[in-house]
Amino acid sequence: MANGRAGALVIIGGAEDHEGECVVLRKFLALAGEKEARIAVVAAAARDPHSTNQEYEQVFARLGVRELEFLALTDRMAAKSRAAAQRLLWASGVFLTGGDQLRMTSIMGGTLAHEALQEAHARGTVVAGTSAGASAIPAVMIVGGQGEEPPRRAIVSMAPGLGLVAGLVVDQHFAQRGRIGRLLAAVAQNPAVTGLGVDEDSAAVLYPGGELEAVGSGTVTIVDGRSITQATPSEAAISEPLSIHGVTLHVIAPGSKFKLAAAIRPGGRASS
Amino acid sequence: MANGRAGALVIIGGAEDHEGECVVLRKFLALAGEKEARIAVVAAAARDPHSTNQEYEQVFARLGVRELEFLALTDRMAAKSRAAAQRLLWASGVFLTGGDQLRMTSIMGGTLAHEALQEAHARGTVVAGTSAGASAIPAVMIVGGQGEEPPRRAIVSMAPGLGLVAGLVVDQHFAQRGRIGRLLAAVAQNPAVTGLGVDEDSAAVLYPGGELEAVGSGTVTIVDGRSITQATPSEAAISEPLSIHGVTLHVIAPGSKFKLAAAIRPGGRASS
Repeated sequence: MANGRAGALVIIGGAEDHEGECVVLRKFLALAGEKEARIAVVAAAARDPHSTNQEYEQVFARLGVRELEFLALTDRMAAKSRAAAQRLLWASGVFLTGGDQLRMTSIMGGTLAHEALQEAHARGTVVAGTSAGASAIPAVMIVGGQGEEPPRRAIVSMAPGLGLVAGLVVDQHFAQRGRIGRLLAAVAQNPAVTGLGVDEDSAAVLYPGGELEAVGSGTVTIVDGRSITQATPSEAAISEPLSIHGVTLHVIAPGSKFKLAAAIRPGGRASS
Repeated sequence: MANGRAGALVIIGGAEDHEGECVVLRKFLALAGEKEARIAVVAAAARDPHSTNQEYEQVFARLGVRELEFLALTDRMAAKSRAAAQRLLWASGVFLTGGDQLRMTSIMGGTLAHEALQEAHARGTVVAGTSAGASAIPAVMIVGGQGEEPPRRAIVSMAPGLGLVAGLVVDQHFAQRGRIGRLLAAVAQNPAVTGLGVDEDSAAVLYPGGELEAVGSGTVTIVDGRSITQATPSEAAISEPLSIHGVTLHVIAPGSKFKLAAAIRPGGRASS
């Protein structure tokens, strides 16, 4: 599945700027074709899709988008419709809004819209997600857990995601909500999976070749567990702090790039 | 990744017969080459790997296995060794024992042994797992949760698995521990993933072409969520019973076969 033709992924840590320079959203639009971009906003995660829509309609119009479609996807019937699938296949860029990532997967998972999203992405469509929309992008997603806590198994819960990239788990609002503990707890459970922590108003852009670029006002934190020498989530009681020795951590500043491990490529979607 | 050359997967619900006809273990050996089989037993999940080893050494010897290697893999150093990887690449059949699936993934995840297991399987090596070893086979695994309960989000916890098959979550000791509630709760979170419940002394054999065969003294239950019309795990409080409308359920009796959805193929491993 991993190939050079899948679209870039723009994984946004939530609270991206809508008022000023809009660096993060401009990056997404640049990748999706600038003035020629055909944007589909998917609000399946949103609790109030129509106010979410109004907000993105305004900011994308201000940024020069001429072709914009809005998919509320408030239930599985809507996500199973051919019309929804067609609009996703039409888009050059798909934007997954924030809200609740389990709401999104429980509505979209296994539907025509989900298949169309995977197919469009595999053929080159750029996919961006912010906050809950960012968490849902990989094969496995973090769905909840407490911030500002030491790593304990009990502070992170996971579920199958949309499967647009393999080998990755994403956490958002990363610095702002003190989520390093829960990201470490997730990676310790299976160090084959790399943790990506994205700050607010920031994005990790993943290119098909495996390059990651940080964009925005904050940073992207990479938790690579392959170097772990000892981690015992199974032996610790679920609520007890974990020992995790030898994690490799990278912080990527805005404008910097980083080469990801070979296992992590947009389009490596066989999962979910 | 999904191709016709990956090995079959033998997903065993735990407590397979070691004393009598050993129908389930014989099936694994038949697929791995009968008298020519080269078997590697991996005990990374086991709390007491050496008694686990003795048990499998005895039963496999009685069943005519002439070439048997044992990998205790008690820590990440062992799983990172070239010797472990070589024995996995040598095997025609790999057997993952029971124990604790998080112990296995936290030890093996992202190591040479994990890569060798994926590579061997992709090239045709048969992989069997029992109990915890069965749960760990897919890209996403169930790691815990209560049985004998109605579906509630709180009764199932998940984590990234070994990634030998995509689109599936496995639960074991299925009828014996009353686990339909937690399997439904898992599938409702993302109906793109099919739930597989395997009874004790029974196995679901997944062939590369997508056929599933039930073997042993119990049944295999398939929970296909793609037909779900309404499921709201995100809106329900985490401990409240869920509404899930329109699940498609299949029970496969021993000796029967069933064609799985196209998304589920051994070797569709891009995740983990």
